[in-house]
Amino acid sequence: MLDELGKLIGAEHVLEAPANSPYNSDASRRSGLEGRADAVALPGSAEQVTDVVRWCYEHDVPIVPRGGGTGLVGGAVPTSGGVVVSLQRLTRVRELEPGLWRMHVEAGVRTRDVQRLARENGLFFAPDPGASEQSLIGGNVATNAGGPHALKYGVTGAWVAGVEAVLAPGELVEIGGWARKDVAGYDVKSLLVGSEGTLGVITAVRLRLLPARETALALVVFLADRAAGCAALLDVLAGGIEPAALDFLDGVTLSFVAGGYPGEVPGRAGFALLVEVDGSAEEAERARDAVVDVVGTRAVAIDQPADRGALWRWRDSFNGVVTGVHGAKVSEDVSFPVERLRDGLERFDEIAALHGLRSCSWGHGGDGNVHATVLVDPAREDELAAAEAVGAELFELVGRLEGSVAAEHGVGVLKGGLLAHQWDARAVELHEQIKRAFDPKGLLNPGKKLARMRG
Amino acid sequence: MLDELGKLIGAEHVLEAPANSPYNSDASRRSGLEGRADAVALPGSAEQVTDVVRWCYEHDVPIVPRGGGTGLVGGAVPTSGGVVVSLQRLTRVRELEPGLWRMHVEAGVRTRDVQRLARENGLFFAPDPGASEQSLIGGNVATNAGGPHALKYGVTGAWVAGVEAVLAPGELVEIGGWARKDVAGYDVKSLLVGSEGTLGVITAVRLRLLPARETALALVVFLADRAAGCAALLDVLAGGIEPAALDFLDGVTLSFVAGGYPGEVPGRAGFALLVEVDGSAEEAERARDAVVDVVGTRAVAIDQPADRGALWRWRDSFNGVVTGVHGAKVSEDVSFPVERLRDGLERFDEIAALHGLRSCSWGHGGDGNVHATVLVDPAREDELAAAEAVGAELFELVGRLEGSVAAEHGVGVLKGGLLAHQWDARAVELHEQIKRAFDPKGLLNPGKKLARMRG
Repeated sequence: MLDELGKLIGAEHVLEAPANSPYNSDASRRSGLEGRADAVALPGSAEQVTDVVRWCYEHDVPIVPRGGGTGLVGGAVPTSGGVVVSLQRLTRVRELEPGLWRMHVEAGVRTRDVQRLARENGLFFAPDPGASEQSLIGGNVATNAGGPHALKYGVTGAWVAGVEAVLAPGELVEIGGWARKDVAGYDVKSLLVGSEGTLGVITAVRLRLLPARETALALVVFLADRAAGCAALLDVLAGGIEPAALDFLDGVTLSFVAGGYPGEVPGRAGFALLVEVDGSAEEAERARDAVVDVVGTRAVAIDQPADRGALWRWRDSFNGVVTGVHGAKVSEDVSFPVERLRDGLERFDEIAALHGLRSCSWGHGGDGNVHATVLVDPAREDELAAAEAVGAELFELVGRLEGSVAAEHGVGVLKGGLLAHQWDARAVELHEQIKRAFDPKGLLNPGKKLARMRG
Repeated sequence: MLDELGKLIGAEHVLEAPANSPYNSDASRRSGLEGRADAVALPGSAEQVTDVVRWCYEHDVPIVPRGGGTGLVGGAVPTSGGVVVSLQRLTRVRELEPGLWRMHVEAGVRTRDVQRLARENGLFFAPDPGASEQSLIGGNVATNAGGPHALKYGVTGAWVAGVEAVLAPGELVEIGGWARKDVAGYDVKSLLVGSEGTLGVITAVRLRLLPARETALALVVFLADRAAGCAALLDVLAGGIEPAALDFLDGVTLSFVAGGYPGEVPGRAGFALLVEVDGSAEEAERARDAVVDVVGTRAVAIDQPADRGALWRWRDSFNGVVTGVHGAKVSEDVSFPVERLRDGLERFDEIAALHGLRSCSWGHGGDGNVHATVLVDPAREDELAAAEAVGAELFELVGRLEGSVAAEHGVGVLKGGLLAHQWDARAVELHEQIKRAFDPKGLLNPGKKLARMRG
């Protein structure tokens, strides 16, 4: 296999994958979630990706596309062996047209570089999922990644004008393009977005950009408790204010991360909202004043940090800090309709408590998107089992509250089989039929984004 | 059949469809595009729609879903007979939550009423396709309708949070919901949006709304000719201005409709842009000033009509006025990448001239969306044949310029088989496989949105 792949893309671009290879895992660090690739291919062009996919499809070899490896659900883990197809060498910016607000980039361009290139050209690429230093834009599109600014600007898919992908059995196609209105075919572009490599391998994406925002201002609203916090969040929306971001952290999370806050966390705070407003200077200031006005009576304190960057760096630290509290944590990325956020958070804490685990939550509150977390000692099997049970009950809760079991981190391996919590039987069946139409041999990222578990 | 359907939904809600029944045609008025329904069913609830679809599917009877009948491509025409399933009695507003910016409406609510209800509650439903007085929201979603404000706000599908639909063989399902982030399954919601009733019958939609815009201001920029007009349009975008709408009309169109303009059309004008900017008062004024600044040196004149409503009513009159010039017209709704708009318009005029027809174009210029029109005498077969030939060459041109053969009016019958101008063979094949997965018997709006013509 290594020889054959080497002939297609050059021997130096085909690697073995011993047990400790980084290509056998992702960032989920969930025990038991390791794979073992038979080979790792690093093609240098969309045409070479096509050659690799065609060879694998012909030889019944699983194909596991891989971006930056920052996924949290095992989507890029070669659990069935096969060839990991890393897109990391497809780094070309094929087109960047500042005057037309658009960029055509290959899948291996870092998300941070997409954001930077936009900024340097007076533009703005709105999606800002975590780990953008490492994640590749192709992976962000393949998982339809979210982030805090999805509240105002939508998730990654909202900015994808076209997708170039290798479809089975090995055809390079392009769906969509720069024509901004197009209903000529079924929305196959949106099917590929978020399909996690199970319908095709994305090799390049056409991205729409916006003119740069003149100003963005941040506020941190501290509240006494969850009830006040969720009420304040709804008040902001009901006040007709459109924040760019409206994140939250609950009291337990706040207690863990307060030390790193770039400012003073009031002692009485048991919940916090991170609000960002943007637009022209007047507009952003007006929105900020409106937020202060609307949440004023509920708030314990309102902080207006001058350094927005420091605030978001603090926000990015939550994951690591919370992991460190007890040795490990299990976070599930789910969403609720926003008016049920309070209910969802309360019940999640009850579920965790019943299983004897300490819980905390944070996330993108305006989107109802919760990273529901339990703290575990990684050496204690009973706690790991309890975390598993909490997850199962959480997913049922999400179904009852009409939320989503997978909000922005994908389905991968870890959330396989959960779709029936949300979808009717006929829709679940269609999910599977779509997969079969795109991938009759079942070789494209097998075992990922499954609607039902096999057997 | 009438009896059986009557038992399901009440005899008074099942109609015959004689040759002159309005249920046999749509608003396209294209000769030869008439159907003949075996029956018209007017179910009163999603459950009754389900019953009708299930009965038809069991008895191998085609199902032709119908909204307001304002389509222009034959999408609602029962060309293969069967049962026309009108959604006009599904008029319930299931939920309207102003503080949460959302509305859950049945498919038969008029688009204008969706817009009005939003407005009356301090909100804004952005999509504004033509014919909103008559069109039903279910039809707008099923065709993924556009309109001028799609430039800033996106097409209808961008505002659909969830779709309730009857899928074959007769299952009522809901995909999506109020959870704003959801990657649990493939994007089947987006597949249903714009599927023109060929994958399922949409019975209700969950719509996202925005807080009302404080101000909208309109400008009409008159330019000497197409070259100046298209250059001015690109200058607006390159200036970092985000207009809410940026429509155009070419010189010939302008000459036809100048009489109805609510103001003075300068004699030297050979092209015009209709620009709308919106936001807070300051923001809108600033954007207006920026437009004036950017296009000032190119413009023949810039008009700032006080009555924005009158301006858009004038815009809505183009279709009728142009039809009246020569007795009839054939308009094709296509799109180009915006920087190729000038090229597309020029070559379209050349094609029409070679076939001896007078042509004119208008449309949503910022989106590259052109209603490319030839004037014909409806009594002259040679002109109708020439119009047909012009259309065929136009679609080839669109393919070469990487535009879309169907921008915002759908595919229906009239644009069947054109997808190969845009998509690679494997993608075309997948379009057809998706159809087969959703509709194994081929009974859902047969003959519509075909990627390839049969035989």
